[in-house]
Amino acid sequence: MNHFIEISQLSKPEVMALLKSALSLKNGSICPQYPAIPLATLFYENSTRTRISFDLAAKRLGMPVVNVDIATSSEAKGESIIDTVKTLAAMGIKCFVIRHKEAGLPIKLAKTCGEGIHVINAGDGMHAHPTQAMLDFMTIMEQKPDLSSLKIAILGDIRHSRVANSLQCLAATLNVGELSLVAPEQWQPTVVHYGTVTDSLRDGLAGADVIICLRVQSERFSTGDTLDLTSYRKAYALTKTTLAYAKKEAMVMHPGPINRSVEIDDEVADGPQSYILQQVQNGVFMRMAILSHLISGSDSLA
Amino acid sequence: MNHFIEISQLSKPEVMALLKSALSLKNGSICPQYPAIPLATLFYENSTRTRISFDLAAKRLGMPVVNVDIATSSEAKGESIIDTVKTLAAMGIKCFVIRHKEAGLPIKLAKTCGEGIHVINAGDGMHAHPTQAMLDFMTIMEQKPDLSSLKIAILGDIRHSRVANSLQCLAATLNVGELSLVAPEQWQPTVVHYGTVTDSLRDGLAGADVIICLRVQSERFSTGDTLDLTSYRKAYALTKTTLAYAKKEAMVMHPGPINRSVEIDDEVADGPQSYILQQVQNGVFMRMAILSHLISGSDSLA
Amino acid sequence: MNHFIEISQLSKPEVMALLKSALSLKNGSICPQYPAIPLATLFYENSTRTRISFDLAAKRLGMPVVNVDIATSSEAKGESIIDTVKTLAAMGIKCFVIRHKEAGLPIKLAKTCGEGIHVINAGDGMHAHPTQAMLDFMTIMEQKPDLSSLKIAILGDIRHSRVANSLQCLAATLNVGELSLVAPEQWQPTVVHYGTVTDSLRDGLAGADVIICLRVQSERFSTGDTLDLTSYRKAYALTKTTLAYAKKEAMVMHPGPINRSVEIDDEVADGPQSYILQQVQNGVFMRMAILSHLISGSDSLA
Repeated sequence: MNHFIEISQLSKPEVMALLKSALSLKNGSICPQYPAIPLATLFYENSTRTRISFDLAAKRLGMPVVNVDIATSSEAKGESIIDTVKTLAAMGIKCFVIRHKEAGLPIKLAKTCGEGIHVINAGDGMHAHPTQAMLDFMTIMEQKPDLSSLKIAILGDIRHSRVANSLQCLAATLNVGELSLVAPEQWQPTVVHYGTVTDSLRDGLAGADVIICLRVQSERFSTGDTLDLTSYRKAYALTKTTLAYAKKEAMVMHPGPINRSVEIDDEVADGPQSYILQQVQNGVFMRMAILSHLISGSDSLA
Repeated sequence: MNHFIEISQLSKPEVMALLKSALSLKNGSICPQYPAIPLATLFYENSTRTRISFDLAAKRLGMPVVNVDIATSSEAKGESIIDTVKTLAAMGIKCFVIRHKEAGLPIKLAKTCGEGIHVINAGDGMHAHPTQAMLDFMTIMEQKPDLSSLKIAILGDIRHSRVANSLQCLAATLNVGELSLVAPEQWQPTVVHYGTVTDSLRDGLAGADVIICLRVQSERFSTGDTLDLTSYRKAYALTKTTLAYAKKEAMVMHPGPINRSVEIDDEVADGPQSYILQQVQNGVFMRMAILSHLISGSDSLA
Repeated sequence: MNHFIEISQLSKPEVMALLKSALSLKNGSICPQYPAIPLATLFYENSTRTRISFDLAAKRLGMPVVNVDIATSSEAKGESIIDTVKTLAAMGIKCFVIRHKEAGLPIKLAKTCGEGIHVINAGDGMHAHPTQAMLDFMTIMEQKPDLSSLKIAILGDIRHSRVANSLQCLAATLNVGELSLVAPEQWQPTVVHYGTVTDSLRDGLAGADVIICLRVQSERFSTGDTLDLTSYRKAYALTKTTLAYAKKEAMVMHPGPINRSVEIDDEVADGPQSYILQQVQNGVFMRMAILSHLISGSDSLA
């Protein structure tokens, strides 16, 4: 494991090893320290939480961190990013955490970089966001470790969601019992990696142990479309009422940042079934585990 | 002491303990180290000096620092900031240094956050800037420790100044002999916490041991108003001539950044009575003392 | 050596000592550590590579680093920068790395600052970029240590290039055998520090051991001028064909960032004669050596 680009590169034992390492770090096992392995974050799309999560993870591992400042307005092109990464690698940076709107850019960078360089995908276009999927399953398995008996529902704009893509791939790798993809027709996936699609919130949530609610991006509502915010909320919002479609103690999750009173209501997001802040907490440990496996191999955390 | 929000939360012994700790750190006493206590700075208003002062203070204490990058143009609302802070707290951040135009936001955040979280107010609207007031009195008391015998004058736009508010509160706590608030009518405080108001620079400075000159913000001069820059300078600028109204060796202070040739002339700002750079220097030590007291309690620096 | 402003301040033995230190650091000699010497970068012009190079150099030396965030659009004035630097110095910052469009600003700052402060010029207007010249000669001398027998060609917009200025000065100090300055008439230097000027690429490169290709800045092509991009490329681009004018194994260098297919073609920039990434790599070590000499004197790295 030299780069961390997409879930499909991982075997089930590799996934399990990462989950085990992340939990062990959370439970206080000693962090390996890598003061000679500088890490750079290159975020060509806005992000507060993911960038800071990687920043804190790297700092806990003793790594020097450089946040490359990129004007969000500038349309950096793939080719010049390759030169930027090669330049930073020549300066001694070993790990590159990259977010970019171009699907496939991280794998392109990984192929171009020399030995000893690690590329970590922090979200590429609508393709993948593998560290998010890993921390989501860490959060699920802390509560409900037997995935084969679980029903998980993903709810929202699945078509345009890199998180939903990576979650489907990971559900396949880990043999989740049932995966329900709940979305209005316009937002249903064009390719399904795993699970079954429904446009019925009631059917999709029926019997669910876990609900992963996606963020609604208002720019997805195009004028003239039959789908608008009011009709979306009416049919798909996670409220106290619709949450009751699922199992009584179903976990509520969300990759954040949440749009309160859009895709999710306050009493659900802040309620006793919400694991949203646990996801955030687990994110730092999962990223520490991933970085550590990339740098030292899977033995690093025993 | 769990948060540092405003001067009124502090007793006189607490203030004295903080001043003693800050001086002791300045004199080279060993810094406590908190590598497991990450700090985030969230500045929703522009600031170079205060943000860097906290950054350096935290780094001297061995704390990992995350500067949350906030577009100054974005109008972040209180409610979403609470979600941001909760998210960062879930990532393991323990101290939040916040500046925001909304008066009262830091106390709101402090009430929402769970245990083990510390909120430090770095300026909220026109309400308070308590660390500035603390470093100002540290600077005064280094030179003139007997506050009960001192006359201090604050000069400028007192009505809109959070610094002036916090200075009045701290002068009250520490029983300053005399506090003179010097301002044109439009900029006189609507509520006086401590001291007496005058529109006469000559009367206000007469017999003063300390002059704290505030920054003139040009956006306060509204068109059609009788107060413009020329008339302000004529009546209130601190020049070699007007400085002579005060005691012969009166200290000249300013929270910065100074507007040269606006509220203060070069020969005063850079002259022998100026303590402006000492204020800056003391700021780092005062913030170290405050952070340390929040994290470890008042025994931390003995 | 208290500041690092321009090449002309250095004697030949000082240059040689810095080159030796940088190579020794590259070869793994133990880094001195300066945890009590904070460094600030102040870049009033955009830069990724130079700023990060200094950042990484300082971090390797254990120095706390503060990147002062300056809106690139704001036209910060010389006077207020002096106040900014004095303020940061009062906070305990000891080293200032500054880039600014105003030629001579670093020396002005150096003269204003008190003792114990070090100003490092990271590029001032069209005047100087001395650390770039130092890392360029480090790269040359690693391959071809006998400078007196070398022909070096600098190619491009020499008139407006601070890099070309500093390279000429350093070539003079180190007695380079032959220095050829190749440029169209509009871009020829108005003052020549060292070397001979030609407008013929073929003559300029003939017999060259080293070619340093400068970046073409498109804003230099003014409308109505006879010089446009097409005619520049035709006469001066470094291509597989024009590279053959030089010696067979001539080194190709470029301060970066390169404009592919403008001043240099891919097959040259990425070819076996290219030392562009070695320049970047050496930059970190050269800046470590410079910082260390400033802080501890020339004995620091023996």
